[in-house]
Amino acid sequence: MKSLLADDHRLPERVLMGPGPSQIHPRVLQALSLPTIGHLDPAFVRLMDDIKQALRSVMQTENTFTLPVSGPGSLAQEACIINLLEPGDKCVICINGVFGGRMKAMAERCGAQVIAVEQAWGRAVDPQALRDTLQAHPDAVLVGFVHAETSTGALSDAETLAAVAREFDCLILADTVTSLAGVPVRIDEWGLDAVYSGTQKCLSCPPGLGPVSLNERALERVRSRRTPVQSWFMDFAPLIDYWQGEKRVYHHTAPVNALYGLAESLAIVLEESMPATWQRHRQAHEALAAGLQAMGLKMAVPVAERAPQLNAVEIPDGVDDASIRSSLLDQFGLEVGAGLGPLAGRIWRIGLMGQSATLENVQFCLSSLSSALEAQGHAVDASGAQRAAAAVG
Amino acid sequence: MKSLLADDHRLPERVLMGPGPSQIHPRVLQALSLPTIGHLDPAFVRLMDDIKQALRSVMQTENTFTLPVSGPGSLAQEACIINLLEPGDKCVICINGVFGGRMKAMAERCGAQVIAVEQAWGRAVDPQALRDTLQAHPDAVLVGFVHAETSTGALSDAETLAAVAREFDCLILADTVTSLAGVPVRIDEWGLDAVYSGTQKCLSCPPGLGPVSLNERALERVRSRRTPVQSWFMDFAPLIDYWQGEKRVYHHTAPVNALYGLAESLAIVLEESMPATWQRHRQAHEALAAGLQAMGLKMAVPVAERAPQLNAVEIPDGVDDASIRSSLLDQFGLEVGAGLGPLAGRIWRIGLMGQSATLENVQFCLSSLSSALEAQGHAVDASGAQRAAAAVG
Repeated sequence: MKSLLADDHRLPERVLMGPGPSQIHPRVLQALSLPTIGHLDPAFVRLMDDIKQALRSVMQTENTFTLPVSGPGSLAQEACIINLLEPGDKCVICINGVFGGRMKAMAERCGAQVIAVEQAWGRAVDPQALRDTLQAHPDAVLVGFVHAETSTGALSDAETLAAVAREFDCLILADTVTSLAGVPVRIDEWGLDAVYSGTQKCLSCPPGLGPVSLNERALERVRSRRTPVQSWFMDFAPLIDYWQGEKRVYHHTAPVNALYGLAESLAIVLEESMPATWQRHRQAHEALAAGLQAMGLKMAVPVAERAPQLNAVEIPDGVDDASIRSSLLDQFGLEVGAGLGPLAGRIWRIGLMGQSATLENVQFCLSSLSSALEAQGHAVDASGAQRAAAAVG
Repeated sequence: MKSLLADDHRLPERVLMGPGPSQIHPRVLQALSLPTIGHLDPAFVRLMDDIKQALRSVMQTENTFTLPVSGPGSLAQEACIINLLEPGDKCVICINGVFGGRMKAMAERCGAQVIAVEQAWGRAVDPQALRDTLQAHPDAVLVGFVHAETSTGALSDAETLAAVAREFDCLILADTVTSLAGVPVRIDEWGLDAVYSGTQKCLSCPPGLGPVSLNERALERVRSRRTPVQSWFMDFAPLIDYWQGEKRVYHHTAPVNALYGLAESLAIVLEESMPATWQRHRQAHEALAAGLQAMGLKMAVPVAERAPQLNAVEIPDGVDDASIRSSLLDQFGLEVGAGLGPLAGRIWRIGLMGQSATLENVQFCLSSLSSALEAQGHAVDASGAQRAAAAVG
């Protein structure tokens, strides 16, 4: 049988400026294609150790239990939730978009009682609303929130939310899928007890792995459970033996080549340095926002609450969402994201994540979007947008 | 930061003849490194469709629901179990090694009542024992068994076991992680209702994906559940919308590059043709078994019950398991597997899976093992082994 990837199935060239996956560095793609070795090979065990160490640096933590689970971010999310919660436990989940809602759904499936702090989509989570809820529910054992809501691009103040949760002696679970490496995520300094992320956002690695980190307080909760974790695959206890044990005990077969890719992407992030990575994301975002504003487009999130790596833009009245995105994809090879849930058809999500966060990509996006809008009869100031973006760079 | 894969961390060259991962074809490694595109890109959606179609050919089924879940075989295993079973359901699980035991553990975690048909490790499952158990438990709703037990290399008669289960109107769940593409797996002809597998065995793809296939009977069970599937990530219902829907509905982000690799590995298997693939595994196995016998080593599984792709060899008295395996790895770059559970230290598991199933590998394994044994003072007839293997080839 002919390759599925050849000829008419040849993969198109794309510039990835959606909500992930982001552009992958050629070094990472090359790493993926290194020869597979055994997952219990001493050389691979050394690589696993190096990955854990590099992840700790990227996640700004000394947590021993810091490793990528063998599945995408949503698997890592569910794994954290079901290890930390037991049937009947009360938890407070902050919901300001799709992924807070998903956290609630996962917690409910494992039998926890969820008190939701509902917030407007496109806004950061309000720490006072969390405090009020915790005062009304002093028996809550865990607070969960999404640092950068991938569905809206709203960035919440993780440090403050964690401080509020700590006042009420709750465990703190933070979703950093979109935030990690795009903005500061300081697990230890902020006192985040359990954190999960994904690889296909600001780490610029293909999707498929979910970094997680738990501190001693969270691990103590896992160790003192009254009931077994409902899932065999997601149970953290045997993962500790597999990833950390003196003698590594087989649990499942780790995705060897995907981990080569992650190792390389972590090395690239650390080579640039965390502050420089954050600064690059910030600068690209400011250039994009200035350009979009000059085009007459409106950002959907208030300026103080924007995640630089994911830019929600309101779709102007009379503009057809799907046809603009098709045109960007087909004519320019540019992927931007659609809105989700109640924001479907109302926003575009323009990602500036990892390797995608460059001023060149910003200019390319502005010019492509201008052309697509103009082709559909919506005049915009294309050159003004380019100049405004360049002024930031 | 320097690449984690360079210099002192450089990956060693290995010949993979353990229980998986197996040798990966260069075309698959190359496919892994193709540029990542969006998981909802129309071009990627087409590739997903092609992967499903190729999987159907490899799995010998017309089942619409035939797709790789985004995690390793053990995730696919748990996903099948928790979608098909509900709390309180009685099921019968055949256990003749580690992976039957794992099936029981997973079923128990989701609240099912498990009746075990315990069999000797290293033997096939006895259909009469299954029938006796089902007669004693007419309220069982599902029978689970492992086609080729990865921990022992015993191959059970899936067709007969399925027929017995069908007599009692049970759903049939078959683990084909090690069997798929190494021996015939005929889902439709044998009436297997739900099947899961892995990519790192006879498909010769890196670990990380778990093909599953459910027929209408199994899907009807999923649709008529009284309770939600306990896991959000593993729930099959939204996976159907993501992988099959007219409009693909975002569920999680599929591991794009890993799926490139699977697409290529499936194409390679189908290019060779299923019968030729099965025959190559059979021939390599017969050569290996003849060579080992000529060396004076004893196969651990009776001849009629051996999976050709995984050869359990008894470790001779006085031979130190770990030091032989270290010597094979360090001096020859050859990975063979250790025993698991009660067979630890008692058997080696020599894999002839996928691209690893060649007569060259058989000869290399025989000569390396002969040298390693001789270096530790255990004289064997090395040239006799080579001749015996060559006579088969």
